[in-house]
Amino acid sequence: MRRLRAVVQYDGTSFAGFQVQPDQRTVQGELQERLAFVCGHPVEVSGAGRTDAGVHALGQVVHWETSGRVPVERVARAVNSAGPADLLVGAVEETRPEFHARYSATRRSYRYFVSAARPTPFAARYVLYEPRLRPGAAERMEAALGPLVGRHDFAAFCAAGSELRGTVRTLEGARLLRRGALWCVELTADAFLRNMVRIVAGLLLEIGTGRREPEALGAALRARSRPPAVQTAPPHGLFLTRVEYPDGYPGPHHPIEEAWGTGTDLALLTLP
Amino acid sequence: MRRLRAVVQYDGTSFAGFQVQPDQRTVQGELQERLAFVCGHPVEVSGAGRTDAGVHALGQVVHWETSGRVPVERVARAVNSAGPADLLVGAVEETRPEFHARYSATRRSYRYFVSAARPTPFAARYVLYEPRLRPGAAERMEAALGPLVGRHDFAAFCAAGSELRGTVRTLEGARLLRRGALWCVELTADAFLRNMVRIVAGLLLEIGTGRREPEALGAALRARSRPPAVQTAPPHGLFLTRVEYPDGYPGPHHPIEEAWGTGTDLALLTLP
Repeated sequence: MRRLRAVVQYDGTSFAGFQVQPDQRTVQGELQERLAFVCGHPVEVSGAGRTDAGVHALGQVVHWETSGRVPVERVARAVNSAGPADLLVGAVEETRPEFHARYSATRRSYRYFVSAARPTPFAARYVLYEPRLRPGAAERMEAALGPLVGRHDFAAFCAAGSELRGTVRTLEGARLLRRGALWCVELTADAFLRNMVRIVAGLLLEIGTGRREPEALGAALRARSRPPAVQTAPPHGLFLTRVEYPDGYPGPHHPIEEAWGTGTDLALLTLP
Repeated sequence: MRRLRAVVQYDGTSFAGFQVQPDQRTVQGELQERLAFVCGHPVEVSGAGRTDAGVHALGQVVHWETSGRVPVERVARAVNSAGPADLLVGAVEETRPEFHARYSATRRSYRYFVSAARPTPFAARYVLYEPRLRPGAAERMEAALGPLVGRHDFAAFCAAGSELRGTVRTLEGARLLRRGALWCVELTADAFLRNMVRIVAGLLLEIGTGRREPEALGAALRARSRPPAVQTAPPHGLFLTRVEYPDGYPGPHHPIEEAWGTGTDLALLTLP
């Protein structure tokens, strides 16, 4: 048996989340199906993060075991050619048997995208539209984010009863990025609770748009309970952008070398 | 009755083309439904180009008549809020009664996008993947495009029996744009025949990838018949980018002022 790993990207729109569910199209299910076809035997895939239905990934990491003889450098192309293009597997590499996509991961980053201007039809799948966002919202949101950074009990920011391993996590970074009408909240932590980024984003947007005070985030953290009536932000603005491991995987550049279209390249749709 | 006009953008993936068809979701049907709701009476929409199923538009132009009293500056927002974000109406303006989105148009531009590298899940809906495209293909494709420019009988490049008004058109411009792995064929003409851009793109890709000689395009034009076995390029790489009128409409900038995400903005999904 060899243990293989890869970075995976997907557009979450047409997936009922990462985790296999009966009669639903899921990322794990789709990967297992394609890998079984390529490897010649049933395959069980483990992922670093169990993203919800509608959430996208730029840098999900998965591993699986195979007794098949397909050379590792051919697996990605075979898997990518075996199904729809809303799921893409990057360069596959062999790893040590102890590696586990989820349990070995030491850092995850998510980005939540919001647009103050109405997104075009080509961006609307990836960005929440929030017309009430005004320039002054930035200071309010940054002030609110500050107290979250550090090792805390994040019980206020998770789906009720969803965590078997406690609710203490270390938030290593929280920042707000802006260019023009596009806003982005980036959170980096050792691990996240279920729905944590979307609950923080929802509360943060209420703060940015003046419906709550900036102190509400820190107060919820200290109280360990979610303020009443906070809306979990919808899934389509959320991307799992990066997962990191002690051995340096996946390195400074995602090993999706042959892929086109995640960066500045998309701007070419309006080449002069 | 007032006659109104607007630029419209859409992601063609989930539309069965522009033109109304029974029991299908079409751009015209969706617009008519939302406008009827906003205007308070049934509305008939005319578009500059009847794009096929799966074809996108950055700059489609439409017109319609209304006896409703909704102020013109409020129509776009109301229409955009009335349905899914894969269809977006730009600033609406009143025009003279003689204006016709289709018959008044004097110039149309289309772009066909091809990627030599596998597109990411976020770009795959808008770009054809053609791994056989090599750098040397550019000269071959440019040589092939040259003879097409000018006033010609383009009978070789249309769906059989589809043109009631003859097959002579003036191709004003044909160019190949490239950046990195992304290639784009841009055609500008007074008008296009049915499927013309996709047939030209299909033949051009066979030339670029060495399956036909560059002379094949000019030869087909002169023979007024399509070479055997040419594949019409798939619809998802095609965008109707611009329609122009003698009165200068829609001007140098598309009047979709509030929209975000068609240009360099998309690059922000990978903000540093």
